[in-house]
Amino acid sequence: MGEANVTTYLLDRLAEAGVERLFGVPGDFTLAMLDDVEEHPTIEWVGCANELGAGYAADGYARIRGLGAVCTTFGVGELSAINAIAGAYAEHVPVIHVVGSPSTATQAAGRATHHTLGDGDFGHFARMAAEVTHAQGLLTVENAAAEIDRVIRETLTERRPGYLLIPADVAKASLPAPDAPLALEDEASDAASLAALRGAAAAAITDASSVSLLAGILVHRMGAEAALHDLLALGVPHAVSLWGRRVVDESSAHYVGPYIGAVSSPEALAAVEDVDVLITVGVQFTDLMSGFFSQHLPETTIEIGPRSVRMGDEVFGSVAMSDALAVLGEVLEEGGLVGDAPDADAAGAGGGAADPVEAAEVAPRAAASRLPVVEVTAEAAEPADAPLDQAALWDAVAARLREGDLVIADQGTSFYGMGMHRMPHGVTFIGQPLWAAIGYTLPALLGAALADRSRRPIVLIGDGAAQLTIAELGTLIRDHVPAIVVVVNNLGYTVERAIHGLTAEYNDIAPWNWTAVVKAFDPTGFTRSVTARTAADVTGAFEQYDRLGGRRLVFIEAVVPPLDVPPLLSALAEQASRANARRDD
Amino acid sequence: MGEANVTTYLLDRLAEAGVERLFGVPGDFTLAMLDDVEEHPTIEWVGCANELGAGYAADGYARIRGLGAVCTTFGVGELSAINAIAGAYAEHVPVIHVVGSPSTATQAAGRATHHTLGDGDFGHFARMAAEVTHAQGLLTVENAAAEIDRVIRETLTERRPGYLLIPADVAKASLPAPDAPLALEDEASDAASLAALRGAAAAAITDASSVSLLAGILVHRMGAEAALHDLLALGVPHAVSLWGRRVVDESSAHYVGPYIGAVSSPEALAAVEDVDVLITVGVQFTDLMSGFFSQHLPETTIEIGPRSVRMGDEVFGSVAMSDALAVLGEVLEEGGLVGDAPDADAAGAGGGAADPVEAAEVAPRAAASRLPVVEVTAEAAEPADAPLDQAALWDAVAARLREGDLVIADQGTSFYGMGMHRMPHGVTFIGQPLWAAIGYTLPALLGAALADRSRRPIVLIGDGAAQLTIAELGTLIRDHVPAIVVVVNNLGYTVERAIHGLTAEYNDIAPWNWTAVVKAFDPTGFTRSVTARTAADVTGAFEQYDRLGGRRLVFIEAVVPPLDVPPLLSALAEQASRANARRDD
Repeated sequence: MGEANVTTYLLDRLAEAGVERLFGVPGDFTLAMLDDVEEHPTIEWVGCANELGAGYAADGYARIRGLGAVCTTFGVGELSAINAIAGAYAEHVPVIHVVGSPSTATQAAGRATHHTLGDGDFGHFARMAAEVTHAQGLLTVENAAAEIDRVIRETLTERRPGYLLIPADVAKASLPAPDAPLALEDEASDAASLAALRGAAAAAITDASSVSLLAGILVHRMGAEAALHDLLALGVPHAVSLWGRRVVDESSAHYVGPYIGAVSSPEALAAVEDVDVLITVGVQFTDLMSGFFSQHLPETTIEIGPRSVRMGDEVFGSVAMSDALAVLGEVLEEGGLVGDAPDADAAGAGGGAADPVEAAEVAPRAAASRLPVVEVTAEAAEPADAPLDQAALWDAVAARLREGDLVIADQGTSFYGMGMHRMPHGVTFIGQPLWAAIGYTLPALLGAALADRSRRPIVLIGDGAAQLTIAELGTLIRDHVPAIVVVVNNLGYTVERAIHGLTAEYNDIAPWNWTAVVKAFDPTGFTRSVTARTAADVTGAFEQYDRLGGRRLVFIEAVVPPLDVPPLLSALAEQASRANARRDD
Repeated sequence: MGEANVTTYLLDRLAEAGVERLFGVPGDFTLAMLDDVEEHPTIEWVGCANELGAGYAADGYARIRGLGAVCTTFGVGELSAINAIAGAYAEHVPVIHVVGSPSTATQAAGRATHHTLGDGDFGHFARMAAEVTHAQGLLTVENAAAEIDRVIRETLTERRPGYLLIPADVAKASLPAPDAPLALEDEASDAASLAALRGAAAAAITDASSVSLLAGILVHRMGAEAALHDLLALGVPHAVSLWGRRVVDESSAHYVGPYIGAVSSPEALAAVEDVDVLITVGVQFTDLMSGFFSQHLPETTIEIGPRSVRMGDEVFGSVAMSDALAVLGEVLEEGGLVGDAPDADAAGAGGGAADPVEAAEVAPRAAASRLPVVEVTAEAAEPADAPLDQAALWDAVAARLREGDLVIADQGTSFYGMGMHRMPHGVTFIGQPLWAAIGYTLPALLGAALADRSRRPIVLIGDGAAQLTIAELGTLIRDHVPAIVVVVNNLGYTVERAIHGLTAEYNDIAPWNWTAVVKAFDPTGFTRSVTARTAADVTGAFEQYDRLGGRRLVFIEAVVPPLDVPPLLSALAEQASRANARRDD
């Protein structure tokens, strides 16, 4: 290891927070930093094909590790990655974007330097970054240690990206290694606030005959999954936002499926809307995840946010999510609403509506589809050798999932096609449903797979989406990252066709020979490719992955009809189309 | 064609300015617009693999057509393209970035909509765009016509990108077609200012015994090429900035090569620095194009800018570049400094320095290389069957160039390798030397080739660079765009190796089978691929392109040693490395 300097200080701090991979593309303003990366004892450089891929990979890594980092060069590099950073912001993912800039002297001279706009203003890109990051640090020799610490601390606390701009000379300036671990912000709950919450919750539950819970993605982000699982173990019927599927165990008998507002299954609708008391935890309603804001929550809803709890007009501040969940668990136990004889149907029954669909308001619900939760079995509805379609594809994939799988589904037919399938215990299901950038998942899988080598990584992505980020398939292969890669070959942007332009030419894409693409990226024979035209082909490819000891990348080109759209996507797309056309609210 | 609306109005204005292709990737906030694009009588949609590629393609198109346009969706789409837009800003390229946004009603509701950060603020991305565009129009039904006109007008006038944000509902709002051509800004020169310039220039030239001219890229951007050619036809010795090679005819006997500050050839150095009067026109000195600001201009330098002329402390405002060139031509003729017996060596001889290198100040020049201009001949220095290296590759490429060729060279060994080669008459040589985003040229070629189907399009790009934007090779092939694509296979970022980390792992890339990549993108057999290991292979591939009638894409994988660096790049890289390490000015 070379001299301790600003770069090594930063690397040590990242390592301390669990980062073992730094994703990026080299550039002349980062090269000196990269020498220190190569020499760092625990952090490894992962050179990506381009910066957008590197940013997505860092995001995928952060979703598993709790922090990710991407390093790019000034201007050209950072702006190529900025869409990934914005996505991390939207989706509450802590990613540090390290950018190497022209030296302090070059900036002071204010001349037309390459990778700048040529106007002498070196601040354009930092101002752009400020729109999509929570914390920004513009490092100098003097402030480097303090700013690195602050930006990493705020990134971890806010679960939003941070930006560190490091001039080439500052990167190499001497700085001793950190002499104490980074002090994180105290997130302990306020005792009085917790006590008040307990009282209010107990009062609300006293007269209730039914309770249920709706969980969302922020449970993961706030590290409250264990507390949630403890609460749910009491036998609380629960639904989940499509965005937050990873936070619950979908194999539980008390799980009723995803709640998506008016397009929910009857069971999820009843469980969420027709109860006396609903607890929501870590839920952020977005258009696509709420059936375009068609959610109808009960009058008595206890909303647990990242740092506070709201009940009607009352807000209990300074309450950690885990603590709120623990308190509510105690209140529920004391209230006798849940207990030793949990019953998955308690909510529906307790809600008093024999048919919740009939009982519901007619207005926005009437327009929506009713989508049953798909119970996954090895028995497919269609024969395994029937021509593959969306339904058979996702049934086949879902049937092969098992504990420990890491499933990343792109925001097209993949995410929605899997939307109603119940996941086995211990599967982590990741999407990007708010930012919804197609192409995200292929590089994200690279990051996620490297973040936990013990999981079986599976990516589900459309062909149009895969073309956006295809080059990172080459990175997966170069680094010999075993994975199952499913590309849905349906000759275009079917997610867009569903919204508008079903057969329009602009929704077509360049027709590629997908298995040949894989082979072209694979000089060492690391991959196995299958063109799947039946469900049996899909199943066979999953089996092949296991037969090969999980040590290869198995690529599945799943050929399905271009105009075949999963029902959940149809329902949401119809609403999206209406929202775009609407001229008044 | 459907109802006249805001989108059709915009398309009509773009068509009026010469745009016949709209590049982009569809998204649900642009789909309704794309229906109108499909139905437009003269504008054709070019769906790209991803938005960065689409942005680069629009830039390449604009560099040939005078205006380009790219259409992306809100957030995810526009941010993926923003690096290309920033590049267009830096390089004075007029590109309109059309972005489809959530409807006015959706924005007014302020809810967490997909493709937003989820915070209800729909202004983040427009503020980011404002950092890298000259004009921004946020369209409403009321202001649409005026704002479209203003943004296109300012984009054309400033030769910088413009941004148009169009909510999905506004895009479809009724708006009659334009009833008169867009009135552009009056760029006529001020007569008094011109007269004053004439007087001052005549006075300066009276006592001079030598004059020369240095031309830059802004000559092209300001449409002053014809005026420049008229002036040069008088027999004025001239050099060119590496950035502006397209503005001069390098086959002229009066052309002395590129001027790159201290790393210029002795001839160019003498012609620019050792004359009594130097005229610069449209030159912007940037670090890489000036040998890191090592230019030394004569005391009497007449600097013709886009809209004004400077002589020492005197500025002549409101002077169009073409008019200034015409005036100076007259003054030169009257002064007898140039005339009917032009002599290419006039400047060097007139400068009075027998050996201009010796005569120069020692300081920054001593550190720099002296690079001779390469006179291109069919006779190569090496046998045609010797193993290919950088020198032999660029010699072979240059020897095959001919009138009408459109050559786009990526900012690595390609641009610098061709830097000292004299181009034949009528070749347009394009690079991106200020923004210097590797990977730019492959999509830019798509745009440039579609902008003028009569040219033979040739792209020169490194393997590391090509990995950044490889998917648009698929777009070239899908649309059957004939071209010669040269990918330099040297296993990594040699441009970075030259600066730092010669053998460092971070400068390696994933090893692809390049000809297999091409084949995978080519289901219809549109391409021919050659792995070139000798100069004869390169030559043969050029010949094959012509034998096929220029109707195929010929792909040349040029295999050269990883550590082989063109001399010009070595010289500049050494200076770049010093600039990065420098801690004071």
